[in-house]
Amino acid sequence: MANERKATAVANANIALVKYWGKRDPALILPYNGSMSMTCEGLQTITTVAFAGEGQDEIIINDDELRKDEKDIRGHLDRIRKLAGIQGKARIVSETNFPVAAGLASSASGLAALTLAAAAAAGLQLSPKDLSILARQGSGSACRSILGGFVEWKRGSQPDGTDSYALQVAPPQHWPDFRMVACIVSDKAKPVGSRAGMAQTVATCPYYPQWVETATKDLETVRQGILTKDFLAVAAAAELNALKMHATMMTTTPPIIYWTPATLEVMHAVRAWREEGIPAYFTMDAGPQVKILTLEPQLAEVERRLSQLEGVARTIVCTPGQGAALQEKHLF
Amino acid sequence: MANERKATAVANANIALVKYWGKRDPALILPYNGSMSMTCEGLQTITTVAFAGEGQDEIIINDDELRKDEKDIRGHLDRIRKLAGIQGKARIVSETNFPVAAGLASSASGLAALTLAAAAAAGLQLSPKDLSILARQGSGSACRSILGGFVEWKRGSQPDGTDSYALQVAPPQHWPDFRMVACIVSDKAKPVGSRAGMAQTVATCPYYPQWVETATKDLETVRQGILTKDFLAVAAAAELNALKMHATMMTTTPPIIYWTPATLEVMHAVRAWREEGIPAYFTMDAGPQVKILTLEPQLAEVERRLSQLEGVARTIVCTPGQGAALQEKHLF
Repeated sequence: MANERKATAVANANIALVKYWGKRDPALILPYNGSMSMTCEGLQTITTVAFAGEGQDEIIINDDELRKDEKDIRGHLDRIRKLAGIQGKARIVSETNFPVAAGLASSASGLAALTLAAAAAAGLQLSPKDLSILARQGSGSACRSILGGFVEWKRGSQPDGTDSYALQVAPPQHWPDFRMVACIVSDKAKPVGSRAGMAQTVATCPYYPQWVETATKDLETVRQGILTKDFLAVAAAAELNALKMHATMMTTTPPIIYWTPATLEVMHAVRAWREEGIPAYFTMDAGPQVKILTLEPQLAEVERRLSQLEGVARTIVCTPGQGAALQEKHLF
Repeated sequence: MANERKATAVANANIALVKYWGKRDPALILPYNGSMSMTCEGLQTITTVAFAGEGQDEIIINDDELRKDEKDIRGHLDRIRKLAGIQGKARIVSETNFPVAAGLASSASGLAALTLAAAAAAGLQLSPKDLSILARQGSGSACRSILGGFVEWKRGSQPDGTDSYALQVAPPQHWPDFRMVACIVSDKAKPVGSRAGMAQTVATCPYYPQWVETATKDLETVRQGILTKDFLAVAAAAELNALKMHATMMTTTPPIIYWTPATLEVMHAVRAWREEGIPAYFTMDAGPQVKILTLEPQLAEVERRLSQLEGVARTIVCTPGQGAALQEKHLF
């Protein structure tokens, strides 16, 4: 048996405050607009990768959602082997600790952990910037999960994607009170994958150019708001940004409507609470779940009120989390 | 007592297939885009107007929704008196026969009936075109209720509004099978009046210019589809047009969200039925109610399915209806 190269990495999921929606280059996964996210502590994927022997890659994943990306994972392994100039069959075990139904993109944490573990196992020494560029090619939003805290994915302008990477705007300890409460709603919408959804939006939505233009402005607002810890500025811009993204989805041909009745129930509730003075805003990704933005002092009240909404099955509280990291202990 | 001039008119409500959303001239009520509607048989307002004596106008309205427009009604009476060169106190009795909660704009039928009755009582002899121009100044969409069947409100380009009027694209008997089923949903959204809502959209929505541009194309599609009785072309364009309008509403600052959970329940149901081969599409105006577009042969099945939806309190079936007309019998 050849000398086995093995590494294990852990990466957290991330939730965007300014959304990534639409690829200007689908092969390299280059976005039309820059985006901003919070890395979510504890919503993690842990992945061990070993390169050894010959034959087909063995991939063991405990997460149905991530398992759908298996073809991408195989392509990503080829990319990393090529970059490292190595050969050898990969053996991968990947475990995600948050429920698939959470509507929290496990492909981001999954591909980020895979990138870091596989790069290390392959003997590559990469900077966070280069790791994020590599992760981006596996799954766009995965590039943001390489870093911790509040993370910007720079759009870039180079055709080769070398300037489209994630960087940390502020570490987790900059704003420890920031909270995102993921609301798992009880009813299911018919899913349209985000990859197909964004391609359809770029191709047919008449509002798409204005989405790109205004998302770029939202990014400035949210970046500045994060740096000055101006919750209202960040949260209001994030809410409007999410509505603008969903507005582009529902005006494609044919329309894509990710919201369900429960989604709207939570949205209206949050707006009503706000009129009572509770600092709470919402954001939604390519699915029915609502993520509520609030601050730690109001978290208990927000959770109490959420527990009274018919459409909310349960909640997961997210705090600003760490970036991807290598671990000593392996999964096999 | 002076010689009393009295007239009574009846006008039906209308539901737009291509929406009116945004005024380029708020005083004259000139729209940014042309629109298209079906006049709805039997959803009527009957109004008697008499001019006699001196003093303040007396206005008796049985419709809470229309009563909110009382200030506009007084202004409209002044406009008609000025045009006719008459003086004299107006006495008005107005009755709307469809429920206020129906989410069917009673201001359209109300202002159309008022315009026709008041013009006749004032001794004005006006063409349908001039009546629609006059009605438009009372309430934009009222200009469409002057005419029957399928009606286009031409945008026009003159600053004085003389080329912004309604005209009949096809009479009711052209397409007697066309149906709109108004679904009265059981929950209430916080209302934002359409006048305030459209002003806010024009002022702050980044997608508004593309709304205007694409609505103009939708108008061509729907007009052609009506003339050739191509249901799928008309209904698909109408549904996308409604989604595009709501997308502009929810991306204003602050966002306006007219939909409720029940609205989305009906929308998703209609889309699912369509996949089963039932020709059904939806449209929504500045409120939570959903109006379903279908054809007479499928009406019973659509109604049966609607009766099984939790969020639908009841339905009102609309058929292509007559334009506004004078009546012999008066209300007082």
